[in-house]
Amino acid sequence: MASANDEIEALIALMARLPGLGPRSARRAVLHLIRRRGALMAPLAAAMAHVAETARECAVCGNIATGDLCDICLNPARATGEICVVEDVADLWAMERGQAFRGRYHVLGGTLSALDAVGPDELGIPRLLERTRAEAISEVILALNATVEGQTTAHYIAEALEGSGVSVTSLAQGVPIGGELDYLDDGTIQAALRARKRF
Amino acid sequence: MASANDEIEALIALMARLPGLGPRSARRAVLHLIRRRGALMAPLAAAMAHVAETARECAVCGNIATGDLCDICLNPARATGEICVVEDVADLWAMERGQAFRGRYHVLGGTLSALDAVGPDELGIPRLLERTRAEAISEVILALNATVEGQTTAHYIAEALEGSGVSVTSLAQGVPIGGELDYLDDGTIQAALRARKRF
Repeated sequence: MASANDEIEALIALMARLPGLGPRSARRAVLHLIRRRGALMAPLAAAMAHVAETARECAVCGNIATGDLCDICLNPARATGEICVVEDVADLWAMERGQAFRGRYHVLGGTLSALDAVGPDELGIPRLLERTRAEAISEVILALNATVEGQTTAHYIAEALEGSGVSVTSLAQGVPIGGELDYLDDGTIQAALRARKRF
Repeated sequence: MASANDEIEALIALMARLPGLGPRSARRAVLHLIRRRGALMAPLAAAMAHVAETARECAVCGNIATGDLCDICLNPARATGEICVVEDVADLWAMERGQAFRGRYHVLGGTLSALDAVGPDELGIPRLLERTRAEAISEVILALNATVEGQTTAHYIAEALEGSGVSVTSLAQGVPIGGELDYLDDGTIQAALRARKRF
């Protein structure tokens, strides 16, 4: 099924491995890139090569960094004393877009899973507990997904911190801003009702 | 809204300019790339840089090539004497995936448009007419989109070739293979009825 030459086909095959692109949209994206090879394709290739070369995990929090430490851990304006625990870097980025949290993070890189043999050590939970002591943390905010695995992991961390004097909190559950009740799942409505507040 | 560092943000902004990716899916794609920076990101950056460096338009047909001529124009096994005229390279690739046409192509790079001031010269139609003489072409197959602009362009080319002895044909219109009548637009059903064949 040769429809372009081998080098272009190889590029399409690599692009098709990106999430959100299939073989057909990868083909369209490559064609778009070739049409704009000076203005878009060459800068994109260079930016990608540079990040591939320099990106690594922050040694403290697990965020993506281009040095030993990430920009958040290096930023003296970020509050110390509070750690927000997230499952992965995408969740950290989502929290940052919210611009509500000004402390530090801890990226677990997954959730506890007996099936996949992911235990506390694989998630760096001992390192989190050590940080709460070393950095004199007063609050750990569990911003884990509202899935069974996320909540299991949250309970595990909360128990591990019991008696340590660290306050453990989690994100509120309820109706999203702008959300319509008719489109919400039953679990969210139940959680929002249980956590109802005086108007 | 700093959610990653500047270099990673710059990469996300470039990725978001690809068709089919928005800001959110570009972010997800970049995160996926960084996680697989050795196995996927570095090879992708290299393949992209290479194609950006070498890709150009085939001097004969307008297909994408990595040399002066594209693989199809260079392939001695492809029939001479037949030219398939397409709007753009994506259409050429679609024809090639069909594996039904074994001749040569001519890529117009668009359609005639009075509004956008695209005339026959901008589309290389004089070059197409010249090719029909120089390459002793017996048939020109118009594989243009079934849109108003595509069909206007098809009529223009057919008229320009009138009296030249070249047979001008176009792709058949009708019910797609596997297509259900209930889901077809009226125009397709009308075209399929007009072009009905003895069973």
